[in-house]
Amino acid sequence: MNFSYVNPTKIFFGQQQIAAIKDAIPADQKVLVIYGGGSIKKNGVYDQVAEALTGHEWSEFSGVEPNPTKETLDKAVAIVKDQNIDFILAVGGGSVIDGSKYVAAASKYDGDGWDIMIGKHQVTEATPLAAILTLPATGSESNMGAVITKAETQDKLPFMSPAVQPKFAVLDPDVMKTLPERQLINGIVDAWVHVCEQYITLPTDAMVQDGYAETLLKTLKMLGEQFAERDDDKWRANLMWSANQALNGLIGSGVPHDWATHMIGHELTALWGVDHARSLAIIQPSLLRNQMQFKRAKLEQMGRNVFGLESGDDLAERTIEAIEAFYHQLGVATQLDNYGESREQAIDAIIDQLNKHGMTVLGENQAITLERSREILELAVS
Amino acid sequence: MNFSYVNPTKIFFGQQQIAAIKDAIPADQKVLVIYGGGSIKKNGVYDQVAEALTGHEWSEFSGVEPNPTKETLDKAVAIVKDQNIDFILAVGGGSVIDGSKYVAAASKYDGDGWDIMIGKHQVTEATPLAAILTLPATGSESNMGAVITKAETQDKLPFMSPAVQPKFAVLDPDVMKTLPERQLINGIVDAWVHVCEQYITLPTDAMVQDGYAETLLKTLKMLGEQFAERDDDKWRANLMWSANQALNGLIGSGVPHDWATHMIGHELTALWGVDHARSLAIIQPSLLRNQMQFKRAKLEQMGRNVFGLESGDDLAERTIEAIEAFYHQLGVATQLDNYGESREQAIDAIIDQLNKHGMTVLGENQAITLERSREILELAVS
Repeated sequence: MNFSYVNPTKIFFGQQQIAAIKDAIPADQKVLVIYGGGSIKKNGVYDQVAEALTGHEWSEFSGVEPNPTKETLDKAVAIVKDQNIDFILAVGGGSVIDGSKYVAAASKYDGDGWDIMIGKHQVTEATPLAAILTLPATGSESNMGAVITKAETQDKLPFMSPAVQPKFAVLDPDVMKTLPERQLINGIVDAWVHVCEQYITLPTDAMVQDGYAETLLKTLKMLGEQFAERDDDKWRANLMWSANQALNGLIGSGVPHDWATHMIGHELTALWGVDHARSLAIIQPSLLRNQMQFKRAKLEQMGRNVFGLESGDDLAERTIEAIEAFYHQLGVATQLDNYGESREQAIDAIIDQLNKHGMTVLGENQAITLERSREILELAVS
Repeated sequence: MNFSYVNPTKIFFGQQQIAAIKDAIPADQKVLVIYGGGSIKKNGVYDQVAEALTGHEWSEFSGVEPNPTKETLDKAVAIVKDQNIDFILAVGGGSVIDGSKYVAAASKYDGDGWDIMIGKHQVTEATPLAAILTLPATGSESNMGAVITKAETQDKLPFMSPAVQPKFAVLDPDVMKTLPERQLINGIVDAWVHVCEQYITLPTDAMVQDGYAETLLKTLKMLGEQFAERDDDKWRANLMWSANQALNGLIGSGVPHDWATHMIGHELTALWGVDHARSLAIIQPSLLRNQMQFKRAKLEQMGRNVFGLESGDDLAERTIEAIEAFYHQLGVATQLDNYGESREQAIDAIIDQLNKHGMTVLGENQAITLERSREILELAVS
């Protein structure tokens, strides 16, 4: 249990907190507000941001798509460079914030931004950025990671750098009031799998980390069960805070991480546009079954501590069934579709993508080879 | 549930992490190492620090006592000023780190350092400091608070400022190997009460904060039960991390805080030198019983979730008994001694001190007047 940990992103949590950006961004900074498809203009968030930025010089860039693409983001990079932008304010969910991290990093680099994604350029400098979160799910608002897609080649790749960690993040649960049901469900599932990727691994001695992870899983489970009560301040605040905590580095300090579900899931999104969270729910149960030799002990612990299941030889198997039931209750599928192709073609396409992206040895035990990934996918369609 | 939260202290956790200070303190900084009675010379920590500081210009100040006094610390303040010290490295437990925070703040102030404690001087600037923790208990290594005593008047007062938050903290569980049993026990009790002060309050909707607090309480409870296994890496690492988490601001974000047990306990320490942790164990059970109208719901929750008690009308009362049993099992008393005076004299002395220090309306409901404090003390001797 050796680790270093710090999370320098200041959190402003609660109703009416968007106004806090006025003082949080130095008055002399020229700001670029980056957002997505325009929902923030309908739900009042844009107006709150504009009001708070009164006195600042600012401009905007809109149109960042879900699974943000290099092609779109490079236009924002050009604006930051041309207009000498000092500060980037991402207003949106994980896609907008991830995209803004790419813009922040690429705007301090003379070459092609994609060099960052393929490891050709190491990010040590970035335009400072902050986030106003409008969709709790990815935790991107207070971590140093981002996932970007190259539309031209259907490549979806991650990068990490302390330089792109947001300076602050505003988490106002009221912004969730107008979110579609599907996005709320995706947020719950995404946060849930983030916790699992750092928890369902070989057992460790880390009692605090395990207990925190179980707290988040129990909270998300309860929010899923109480989905009918989603138009409630309490429900919204707890989802927003647990999704943040799920991926801010804390529960993952000093313990093994898996992330294989994410790496395989990314290819479903890149190939067929599957919602990120839903790609995870498709892959995870089959992956856990395939990797049972490593996952059994922690699944048993999860069964007892999160689902309150009785002990028994098949406790780990029952825990996976309980995870599936949790997804199904939210209307989220756990089987792989063919996406209009034959079953073999679909699986071949995913395996080809994994191979192309170097995702040939995945998981905390480096046990998920392409052969194992194929087994997992076959299990997911059966 | 509105709050802002950030913890900028970088944690280096694990065995052999003291070496990390070499790169964490800029090479051109002139360092003052502050420590206590010299135990770090016996257990090898001093040598590790000296080794890591090779290449830095550094000097040392020793002799910071438990419940550090202004009188001692002002000598270190003079050194920082006279020698133009750039960086303070506190090597010790809560007393040394708290004392170093006072030194850091007072060294940037022209007047008497005690002005900080009585609120006459607002701290906005301090000499940068960091901590090497040798005794897990107070959480001072990654928070912005400190408690300082004026020996002359037996005043023990707290101050807080973001300026004295350590830049980094080294938590190497191996430093605990040579700690006396009494200090380990005090550490468990201190961390336990820190969690309780932020948890046993009126119920809120904060599911994550409650679950995290319960995780820490369950961890500390298990470490107490497994006290015989204290010479074990796992035991040490879990105590060190849970004591840190107990008071780094996270579990207290967006929820009410009590701290009345601390304020009353401080007077026992100031008057008769009672160990800080032991003063808390004396006050807390009686305070909970006295404030039952506010504490019942959360005590019931604690009884179920931390102690695994069955429901029932007297669940809150049984939870307080379980807390007492937890202290007694560690050999920690929960009754107020007379400290060589008559019972009435002892209580009068404490009440006089509380009055003098303005501690006349305490607790998260501002319900603990001097009259209530007297009731609590009488309950604690009965």
